[in-house]
Amino acid sequence: MNIKNIIYILGYIILFTGAFFVLPFSTGLLYHEMGAALLYLGLGILYMAIGGMILHFRPKTRSLFSRDGAVAVALGWIIMSLLGAVPFTALGEIPSYIDAVFETVSGITTTGSSILTNVEALSHASLFWRSFTHWVGGMGVLVLIMAVFPMMGGYDMNLMKMESPGPSVTKFVPHIKDSAKILYSLYFLITMAQIICLLIARMPLFDTLSITFGTVGTGGFGIRADSCASYTTAQQYIISIFMILSGINYTAYFLIASRKWKAALKLEEVRWYLIIIAVSTALICLNIRQMFPDFEQTFRASLFAVSTIITTTGYATVDFNLWPSFSKFILCLLMVIGACAGSTGGGLKVSRVLLLTRGLKNELSLIVHPHERRIVRMDGEKVESSTIRNTQVYLTAYTLILSLSILIVSLDNFDFETNVTAVLATFNNIGPGLAGVGPTSNFSAYSPLSKIVMIFDMLAGRLEIFPLLILLYRKAWKKH
Amino acid sequence: MNIKNIIYILGYIILFTGAFFVLPFSTGLLYHEMGAALLYLGLGILYMAIGGMILHFRPKTRSLFSRDGAVAVALGWIIMSLLGAVPFTALGEIPSYIDAVFETVSGITTTGSSILTNVEALSHASLFWRSFTHWVGGMGVLVLIMAVFPMMGGYDMNLMKMESPGPSVTKFVPHIKDSAKILYSLYFLITMAQIICLLIARMPLFDTLSITFGTVGTGGFGIRADSCASYTTAQQYIISIFMILSGINYTAYFLIASRKWKAALKLEEVRWYLIIIAVSTALICLNIRQMFPDFEQTFRASLFAVSTIITTTGYATVDFNLWPSFSKFILCLLMVIGACAGSTGGGLKVSRVLLLTRGLKNELSLIVHPHERRIVRMDGEKVESSTIRNTQVYLTAYTLILSLSILIVSLDNFDFETNVTAVLATFNNIGPGLAGVGPTSNFSAYSPLSKIVMIFDMLAGRLEIFPLLILLYRKAWKKH
Repeated sequence: MNIKNIIYILGYIILFTGAFFVLPFSTGLLYHEMGAALLYLGLGILYMAIGGMILHFRPKTRSLFSRDGAVAVALGWIIMSLLGAVPFTALGEIPSYIDAVFETVSGITTTGSSILTNVEALSHASLFWRSFTHWVGGMGVLVLIMAVFPMMGGYDMNLMKMESPGPSVTKFVPHIKDSAKILYSLYFLITMAQIICLLIARMPLFDTLSITFGTVGTGGFGIRADSCASYTTAQQYIISIFMILSGINYTAYFLIASRKWKAALKLEEVRWYLIIIAVSTALICLNIRQMFPDFEQTFRASLFAVSTIITTTGYATVDFNLWPSFSKFILCLLMVIGACAGSTGGGLKVSRVLLLTRGLKNELSLIVHPHERRIVRMDGEKVESSTIRNTQVYLTAYTLILSLSILIVSLDNFDFETNVTAVLATFNNIGPGLAGVGPTSNFSAYSPLSKIVMIFDMLAGRLEIFPLLILLYRKAWKKH
Repeated sequence: MNIKNIIYILGYIILFTGAFFVLPFSTGLLYHEMGAALLYLGLGILYMAIGGMILHFRPKTRSLFSRDGAVAVALGWIIMSLLGAVPFTALGEIPSYIDAVFETVSGITTTGSSILTNVEALSHASLFWRSFTHWVGGMGVLVLIMAVFPMMGGYDMNLMKMESPGPSVTKFVPHIKDSAKILYSLYFLITMAQIICLLIARMPLFDTLSITFGTVGTGGFGIRADSCASYTTAQQYIISIFMILSGINYTAYFLIASRKWKAALKLEEVRWYLIIIAVSTALICLNIRQMFPDFEQTFRASLFAVSTIITTTGYATVDFNLWPSFSKFILCLLMVIGACAGSTGGGLKVSRVLLLTRGLKNELSLIVHPHERRIVRMDGEKVESSTIRNTQVYLTAYTLILSLSILIVSLDNFDFETNVTAVLATFNNIGPGLAGVGPTSNFSAYSPLSKIVMIFDMLAGRLEIFPLLILLYRKAWKKH
């Protein structure tokens, strides 16, 4: 384990967390919340000082192996959550620190599950910080650091691999650093586009910014008690569309920006992602048509629910907890499938589901023709057998963590649907579940133990399991 | 596809189904149920005539590839279910033929889920036939045919592989035919041992036979409305112990019979299976201790529930549906884990769970030390990478079928817990689920569509998915 280099990377993360606090500080000033503003300012300066001090001890070599990258990313996210949670408790807005950590982890992992019973009681400064964590967590804080600091060479690939979602990382350009810059530029463009659309649709500025961070980061923290129910029809459609856009693999945007239209259209993952959205919306429309007065409302509710769940955002316009079992189970399946790899969304990812089903087809084909060699392809190219194996192992780890988490959470003795969907919603970074944790409820009723389990699940879901397992893996800490 | 040979094998199955009817016929005679007796006699003769006719056309060659074995086994089990269901409907005991097929499939797949609202209304002949299907299905009808008919040479391995549960088949001796004989001899011995024990504990003969078939086959059809609740303490312990014994890999018994004690004790699957039973029983004991007046009753209820679920038998002594969420979720996990490979139990099998977790550990180790080659071992021996891959693909297929089944079953609009556990209970060949399909309820409320889905699930669970998928796989039917 390359401890020195890992601490050095953590230094960057502490520095950045402090720097981010300039935003809630400014918001506090703007809304005359002096206490909150000063607290964010003070903590920000403190964190930056600590981070800067750590960065002063520059390690001599800059090599970072896979496992070091995993540990750095896992620890980095944990530290950022622990530091980011302090203001909530210090301001007395979330008295329990575990609750505050839950809320912050839920933010940076773009989950959007909340323990707040009345979100509107928070200061504007804290509301802004809470929503902003979605934006940073969506594309990844280390990717941002790489995009901004050019001197991190040597670390790049192994950090990027651990922080970016999906079974494999697509490098747009030879240098990872440039890839990180391109990613954040695209991300910034989409963010700006949604802000402009929502402002045109007459949403207030504070709402616009918060909702946009929650949408493009596929997070789902709202700032109103009813999530998105009180926004206008046009605003709801805009949010729906930007959720869907945010769940698309950013490779598609890069190809479009490079005018490689054909290649963009060829991306199988994106195609299947859109097919799943269309089919699910149609099925739910049919299933819930009697619950709404007209087709437009049925369609809008279905489309919003499907896009909010498959992209793992978690906003709500209606209480889909009241829908029939069939529609609710479609939503459960979408929770697990999740968005595209290389997007800001969570879940298994559409590409993993494709690889798994292709692996299955391959195995059947082997039984039928044992001597025939078959190749699994994706977007016309051969998929390495190690990628398929890794995806299959991922399913094992996913199933194992899911099962054990539900088991521990069951100790609180809530009903089956609540427990299962609470874990599904946190582990897949969705936000709301069903029943006791449905869109009109929250996670405050769970015990501290269950909350710690779900904090683990949110981090494991966002970082795609392996970094956290490596952190807990005894052998990773032994000297080689 | 080797159609002629497949039809020939189906001939054997039809012949045997007819021959089996001699048992309900005799039972009917004994209990003066002349109508039922004659019906079983008539149908038995008819089936034997049809089977005999088919066997008259002996194919010239006797080769059978993997896929042919898969199709033969899948079709064989379907035909046996369709034929075995006829008497129930013909006698008017189960008026709907789909219900009768559900009940028969539930029998031969050793599931034990029932659509009967009052099992005690059935004739003794039909009750006996219903319980006997468990016994035949437990060890496998084709394995029985192989054990009895020596002339099937050439087919053996590929049929055995498809009908026996587990990630790989252990050949006890060089000839598969002899392995089949050994298996059925051990099976017969365990059956006799339980019959003797229950008779000593003063259980009536008819109950003894029915309950024994249901125990050693890990089926779970009872003949009393309260399943096993009204049996004595001693009888309940005997059933518990024989359920646990029936879930053990038969390799252990073969090794013990061959006096290879050390090798038997070394079997990791059996060791883990017993550990899981001990830990689960202890956890449930702690969790439900307030619900019973003393420790013995708590322990007996916990042990019975754990053994009935992990071995996928499905008998019940108490309504565990009323237990706290934690205990109920332990039972859900045990449903999925299941018994040992090479036993009569269902579920994923303990050895698959071991292979999956070892595959996961291997992958973590690869991230930590990318250049180190590691070998997955089981019982001290190297596991082929193709076995691990097959196990991982199995998990994919398992998850896929589980998800799609729950989705379709949700159309009936029962609650989440009912739908999920109904599919878990049928797919893993358990019997009862929780909530609406708990131990005091039954499956009669589901629509015909849901019942067809669960019929598929029961067969897929018992035959371990691949044979049924091959049957539905277009490419398997094409000429090579």
